[in-house]
Order: sequence, then structure tokens, then C-alpha cells
Amino acid sequence: MTSKKVVELFYDVVSPYSWLGFEIMCRYRNVWNIELKLRPAFLGGVMQGSGNKPPGLVPNKFQYMAKDLLRLSAYFDVPLQAPSDPFEAMFQKGSLTAMRFVTAVQVRETGGDKQVERVSRELWRRVWREDKDITEPASLSEAAMKAGLSEREIKEALELSTSGEIKEKLKSVTQNALDHGAFGFPLVVCHINGKPEMFFGSDRFELMAHCIGEKWLGPQPDIAAAKL
Amino acid sequence: MTSKKVVELFYDVVSPYSWLGFEIMCRYRNVWNIELKLRPAFLGGVMQGSGNKPPGLVPNKFQYMAKDLLRLSAYFDVPLQAPSDPFEAMFQKGSLTAMRFVTAVQVRETGGDKQVERVSRELWRRVWREDKDITEPASLSEAAMKAGLSEREIKEALELSTSGEIKEKLKSVTQNALDHGAFGFPLVVCHINGKPEMFFGSDRFELMAHCIGEKWLGPQPDIAAAKL
Repeated sequence: MTSKKVVELFYDVVSPYSWLGFEIMCRYRNVWNIELKLRPAFLGGVMQGSGNKPPGLVPNKFQYMAKDLLRLSAYFDVPLQAPSDPFEAMFQKGSLTAMRFVTAVQVRETGGDKQVERVSRELWRRVWREDKDITEPASLSEAAMKAGLSEREIKEALELSTSGEIKEKLKSVTQNALDHGAFGFPLVVCHINGKPEMFFGSDRFELMAHCIGEKWLGPQPDIAAAKL
Repeated sequence: MTSKKVVELFYDVVSPYSWLGFEIMCRYRNVWNIELKLRPAFLGGVMQGSGNKPPGLVPNKFQYMAKDLLRLSAYFDVPLQAPSDPFEAMFQKGSLTAMRFVTAVQVRETGGDKQVERVSRELWRRVWREDKDITEPASLSEAAMKAGLSEREIKEALELSTSGEIKEKLKSVTQNALDHGAFGFPLVVCHINGKPEMFFGSDRFELMAHCIGEKWLGPQPDIAAAKL
């Protein structure tokens, strides 16, 4: 039995390309011989720390991204839809509270990462499908409820999310991404023979597969694998 | 017999991702039912016209791109290697003279685009493999000679390349790319049922194939097709 390659996925639920990357990696954790580690982090901190500017500030790029996301969401089968005011959602409201909450859910969870996976997905669904808020405690509760957390678990995660411990944890994961060379999300770090290989964005899966000695079977690997 | 879908490839030989995209599209013109139209254009004009900034100005992004290009060049089998001073090559020396020359070669060529294809490739090879100049007439001559053009053809293309006609032609193709929404190169425009579908960069080939009803067989389709 060969040991699984550790693959870290740094993401923020405010980033639509992160959602695409997240779903692909969650699908492939069952197909490739990898141990996927979810690394919820803060995109705002990565942009500031790397000195990068949001791509949407260039009008042609913004229009292209809107189109690109629609095409990719259909092809990847991820139900993504732009909010009515993407700038407000991404830059004014932002994701700091949401990512602290996700971090709290992850810190509380024992024996796996099902909760953090589901809560992340429900938060993405709120911003990038249903055009809903993710900054208010009630919004986070609603997402966590849909993700299957109990009332008690949600209350505790909400309380924990404003603690110094969680703020520091989120900062340190974000710094970790920057130390790997991040300038945006998603960022996938594959540990191959003790060496980290970084992949930015949601368009290097075929190359990633090649680098870790696995096969890319398209965005819906279960269907593709079933066909083999 | 179904008619071929027209696919336009806008590129500049100063852009390494354009080289990757160019080689992939030149390979797939023999595999997919497409008519590939080469559109040599001026990246500097596209960056200025769209208000975009070179990605390499963010240090983390620059380092990532250097690594990404190396990995992709190995995977795509395109012999790319960064020049000793990429900033000088890309921004100080630039590609205006070179792209005017490529445009002149294309305007002169009748009955196909073998010359423009080969000259473009040799110019890429100079900057992005051999760390050589592409701004001097002697450099352009050398590239064109390797590409198989005769001395007379080279002399005529060099003369033509400084004419008003060619300057206008390059401007108009560049403007055409901007009108399609370009903010960088390579840009592939697939005409599907009379509607243009734009793909930016060298990482949307699988999605592109899906959109035009073809199959993505990896970066070396001839090998993959032979295996089928």
C-alpha cells in the first residue's frame, strides 16, 4: 500500500473560482490516491499581503470572467451564478466573518472534515448562487443548519468564531498560503516527495494530475471512471 | 460534409503563454474540424487599450508564472525557457518591430499560412528559448531564414514591415482583438453558429473543445489520437 500524497486546498468562499476548485478536489479525493486537507483562509489578506489587485478591476477582464465562470460552472456542474452586485459582495461585504466561522467549524470538528466541507459549500451557495448575505450571524447559522450542524454546534461555532484563537488561526493559515507564494485563490499545494508543488486557479487539474502521477478524467470523474 | 468552424488565434511572439497556445492550436487544426486563422497582433496595444497591467509585476505571481511555464512547457512539449532578463525582453525591447514583420510575412504570403506559422515559431524560439534579440532587422532575417523563407522574400518582408500599410494592418488586428474583449494574449475566438466565443490563455482547451463539440485529447493530440 502506497501512502497517500498530501494535497492542501487554500480557499475563501467569496471566490467563485475557489468554489470550482473546491468541488473538483472534493470529487477527486475519492479518485486519486491523495489526502485532501481543506485550508479555509482569507482572500483579502492574500491580496493585501502579495500586493495583487482583483482581476475584475479591468473591464474587459471582468466581462470575460463573468462569461468564463458561467461556461465553467455548466461544464463542471457547479451551480454558480453571479450575485446582482459582485463588487459589493466581494469587496464591500467581504468574507472575514464567514471565513472565521468556517475556521471555527473546522477547529471544533473531530474525526474528519465533513462539516467544514458542507458549511463551505453552503456559504458559496449563498453568495454565488442565491445572492444572499454571508456576513450576519443569522446568515452563517442558516448555512450551517443546511449543512446539517445541530443548533448547539452552530451556537458554539458562532461564539468561537469571534475569539482571539480563531482570528489567529485564520491569520496563520492565510500567512501559510502567502509563504507558499499565493497571490489569489484557490491555491492547491501538492506535497510530492517532500517538495511542495503549487497550482493556482481552477485550470491546472490536468497538469496537477500529471505532476502527482494520477489521471485527469474531466470535471466529473465519477461519471468518467464509471465509463472506463 | 460539415463546414469547418472558424477559429481565430490572436497572439504576440513576446508572450510565452501565446507560444503554448499557438502550438496547441497548430496541432489541433489537424485533429478538430476547424479552420484556424492566425492573427498576429500587438500585445502592448492590447494591454494599453484594455488598461491591464502585466501579471509579472506582482512578485508572487511572477515567481509562480516562471514555475508554471516550465511545468507547462514540459507537459506540452514546447521547448520554452525564460530569457535571462524577462523584463527587458518583454517591456523594454518589446515586440512591435517583430509583430510588424510577422504581419508583413502574412500579408505577402499566398495560398496558406505556413510561412507566418514558421516565422512566428522561430521568433518565439529566439526570445523564449535562445535568449536572443527580435528587434533588429538582422534578427528578423535570421528567424525568417530558419523558417525557410528565401533571401528575396525576407528582404521584401523587411521593407514592407515598415510601411504605413503594415502598421495600419497590425493596429487593426490588435483593435479587432480589443473589440472581442481582449485584455491579454493568447486569445482564441471560436465562431459557433455565427456567435464568437472567446477563450483567454492556454488553459481552456478542454472547455473550448466542449464548446465547439470536439474532444480534448491532451496537449499532444497526434500521439493520443494514434493510441485511440
